[in-house]
Amino acid sequence: MNKVIKKAVVMLSGGLDSATVLAMAREQGYATYALSFDYGQRHRSELDAAARVAKVGGAHEHRVIKLDLTGWGGSALTDHNIAVPTAPTSGIPITYVPARNTIFLSLALAWAETLGAVDIFAGMNAVDYSGYPDCRPDYLAAFQTMARLATKSGVEGGEITIHTPIIKMSKADIVREGTRLGVDYAMTVSCYQANADGLACGICDSCRLRKEGFHAAGLPDPTRYA
Amino acid sequence: MNKVIKKAVVMLSGGLDSATVLAMAREQGYATYALSFDYGQRHRSELDAAARVAKVGGAHEHRVIKLDLTGWGGSALTDHNIAVPTAPTSGIPITYVPARNTIFLSLALAWAETLGAVDIFAGMNAVDYSGYPDCRPDYLAAFQTMARLATKSGVEGGEITIHTPIIKMSKADIVREGTRLGVDYAMTVSCYQANADGLACGICDSCRLRKEGFHAAGLPDPTRYA
Repeated sequence: MNKVIKKAVVMLSGGLDSATVLAMAREQGYATYALSFDYGQRHRSELDAAARVAKVGGAHEHRVIKLDLTGWGGSALTDHNIAVPTAPTSGIPITYVPARNTIFLSLALAWAETLGAVDIFAGMNAVDYSGYPDCRPDYLAAFQTMARLATKSGVEGGEITIHTPIIKMSKADIVREGTRLGVDYAMTVSCYQANADGLACGICDSCRLRKEGFHAAGLPDPTRYA
Repeated sequence: MNKVIKKAVVMLSGGLDSATVLAMAREQGYATYALSFDYGQRHRSELDAAARVAKVGGAHEHRVIKLDLTGWGGSALTDHNIAVPTAPTSGIPITYVPARNTIFLSLALAWAETLGAVDIFAGMNAVDYSGYPDCRPDYLAAFQTMARLATKSGVEGGEITIHTPIIKMSKADIVREGTRLGVDYAMTVSCYQANADGLACGICDSCRLRKEGFHAAGLPDPTRYA
């Protein structure tokens, strides 16, 4: 009996969230095509982590798109003159990169269309990152509406869907789900300023959220700290 | 008396349409920031044309973003194994590049946000290119809705606007308007397969539409043909 395997593009940063999403897409039966971006981020060891996670996570293919956003400044993640904050801030965080998710989702959309896929998985989370405008559910719904009008597959009736399965999950829930699915979090890198070996600083916003997640889930934290 | 000059990002391909849009944005009093894309298009002399048009058209800055979409295939404009058609076709043309305008507009949005601009000008045209899903007014309206939710400026009340001033104009009207504004069309390149010197083939879809435009407008065609 032949079964049609549906393809999905999975946005994979190399961090904890997207590694979990990759495992969830695979469990749902998709053939996964992992997509990462080399956009001048400080934490470049993220990309090494993404390659490992894609391989171990059974992705059919892993592509890294190089996109230089450093010249544009305005974010602590791409502008090396702005310090990464180590305490929670109110409003939109300085680690926000202008239109980043819109750019990434657009490129995922293009690859999906080329593959003949209508499913895109992304690891946005509205609980921990509610300060980012482009992580909110209403933004994602608007992107999906736009995407259906933008593409040949959309025009021909293919229902492009942006799946964000962890959007309302706490970090503890995400870690529990990933652990159930066999994700090895030791190979993921979440730190905003990990060193070249992928060792985490342990004090930035991202490290703090991750640490609290393992603690709240009652699971050992396998993160490799510097 | 000081006057606040509003900034606008103008998408500039180097072709006839976007050169006209640049002149229109400037006439409306915007300080223009021209944005071009090096995406592996066949017609690379377009980029040389864009640089000339930006300079002569008074753009404050001209940026070229390199983005390699050739590996993705699927379009006659980026896949050198697919021939450029020389006769009108029905449906979505083979020159359609998956999600191209969505990717380009997303990058324009990022630059606008970095500049503190809320205005983006683009040369989409629904008359000549109704076959492209991402040139249609309903697509563009959906993109604008998404963009207002995606960005810090949108969240803070800035009304991001995607201006498409030539969307309903015929090629003849576009040429007449640009001529009134002093656009030198001899320095623009529209041809899908122009040679390295920017000389046009004269027979592709784009050349045909351009030629008919000058003819219908009763204006001499300054295009440099091979």
